[in-house]
Amino acid sequence: MTQLQINEVAPRDGFQIEATFVPTAAKIRLIDALSATGLARIEATSFVSPKAVPALADAAEVVAGITRRPGVGITVLVPNLKGAERALAAGVDEINLVMSASDSHGLANLRMTSAQSLEQLAAIVEAVRAHPQGRELFINASLSTSFGCPFEGAVAEARVLALVERQLALGVQGVTLCDTTGMANPAQVARLCEAAQARFPGIPFTLHFHNTRGMGLANALAAWQAGITRFDASLGGLGGCPYAPGATGNVCTEDLVHMFEQMGVATGVDLDALLAASATLPELVGHETPGQVVKAGKADRRYPMPAR
Amino acid sequence: MTQLQINEVAPRDGFQIEATFVPTAAKIRLIDALSATGLARIEATSFVSPKAVPALADAAEVVAGITRRPGVGITVLVPNLKGAERALAAGVDEINLVMSASDSHGLANLRMTSAQSLEQLAAIVEAVRAHPQGRELFINASLSTSFGCPFEGAVAEARVLALVERQLALGVQGVTLCDTTGMANPAQVARLCEAAQARFPGIPFTLHFHNTRGMGLANALAAWQAGITRFDASLGGLGGCPYAPGATGNVCTEDLVHMFEQMGVATGVDLDALLAASATLPELVGHETPGQVVKAGKADRRYPMPAR
Repeated sequence: MTQLQINEVAPRDGFQIEATFVPTAAKIRLIDALSATGLARIEATSFVSPKAVPALADAAEVVAGITRRPGVGITVLVPNLKGAERALAAGVDEINLVMSASDSHGLANLRMTSAQSLEQLAAIVEAVRAHPQGRELFINASLSTSFGCPFEGAVAEARVLALVERQLALGVQGVTLCDTTGMANPAQVARLCEAAQARFPGIPFTLHFHNTRGMGLANALAAWQAGITRFDASLGGLGGCPYAPGATGNVCTEDLVHMFEQMGVATGVDLDALLAASATLPELVGHETPGQVVKAGKADRRYPMPAR
Repeated sequence: MTQLQINEVAPRDGFQIEATFVPTAAKIRLIDALSATGLARIEATSFVSPKAVPALADAAEVVAGITRRPGVGITVLVPNLKGAERALAAGVDEINLVMSASDSHGLANLRMTSAQSLEQLAAIVEAVRAHPQGRELFINASLSTSFGCPFEGAVAEARVLALVERQLALGVQGVTLCDTTGMANPAQVARLCEAAQARFPGIPFTLHFHNTRGMGLANALAAWQAGITRFDASLGGLGGCPYAPGATGNVCTEDLVHMFEQMGVATGVDLDALLAASATLPELVGHETPGQVVKAGKADRRYPMPAR
């Protein structure tokens, strides 16, 4: 059975919406601790405008400060050409471009329609490949609202697949299908995962779920049953979407790892080390996290018999 | 596709561990509201000793006070012979007997080993069938710790199946396999559901999950994929286990109904009415509930585009 590849996104997708600025040294310590757990990949930060996302204004310092470990890919979110140049200068293993499958989410989040985003993706890929440090860089693209848009509603599977085809034609090497606001259900996940893999064999698809409506792990299960082995997840379940207030965040890394390890599906991750890292989050962000295994303990936890 | 049958257990499994006594009139109002949503079955209370569980001391008044609706079965938990007599006097459609698959949980929770519980089950079934009101009563049995025991750890599948066989031989007509402290994982759920149905064809099995480690809906999905159509669930995700402190409770009824309805699996339940009932819980129990759809809204919820 193929080992899962978990891409930890809390340092980017989690911290970007926190009210508290997590100090650069603490970010570096956390990423180093995460690297030591055996995660396949860490999305360390975003080379976004510091004005747009002050929480990640220290992107270059973070990438420069972390300890690189063989086998742990460091990726960063790159929202535009300027971000790509900063990422190339910083030196990373992978970049993650981003666009929305729905025009209204693209306009709200990136001020671009899907068509405009594709033009920008083309320009970024071209610039990266022309750069001496960019020739071998792995280029991934995340496709937000692949399972539905909080403004438009349903996003047709045919539209999602057509956008993936365009991304790949531009030179994108891997695609992350994102359930940005937790609208996906397991039946839909199975359908889209099967269709994407059938149409684009050999392309590494990553699935990105949110637990907004409690279906995060059920959707991950459905994706895995459909042959997906790459998942985004966020330590402690940090993250979320500003357009879905009151909702919990991304699918929680340690809860995801726990479920699959309990099922006998190898993740390569040291769950105890991951839980220890998660336990440091409340002090960093100033609030409890939605993760459940960090509170309840692993399924093999034993309790003493109550005295009667 | 077979319509699911949801058994709502919040009035029993939820309220029994709340610190606040929910007034009898409020319990009756809630059960009546739940009956109107199209749920197949409601576990209205437990005929347990009022000293052991003061929160349910009003069991007889609750059963007498609720409005009975055709198509909505009223069931009650019956922990012993005395409870069975009280349930027969109250008049219900079904009784739910209870025992543990592990001796240590049985001793901690019921002061009985599994063997002692089976003897008691035999006595209860005999007494019920000898009673004029008991001849046609549906007798279900819940088997706690079917997926693991918080004191002993793993419970062998062979032991669980052997206990089910004994229960059925005693005249029990349906069995609920309970993941009492949220230890089950989807692979294990699929295995036990398949094995139980293969060995006891035609027997209605109900699955009872907790969301202790976030796997409640994933486990329900796995059970459904294995052919299970009957589920226990608790409004708002109320409930839990005193032996797993800090953990969330039972799988949440409205989140379960939401997931399956989104998947196109009919539940017969009016989700909006269910969400309205769930929204009344915080006032009744004095705290927020773990349910997520009641906070985030259904997946088809639309948001206005943000102003820029």
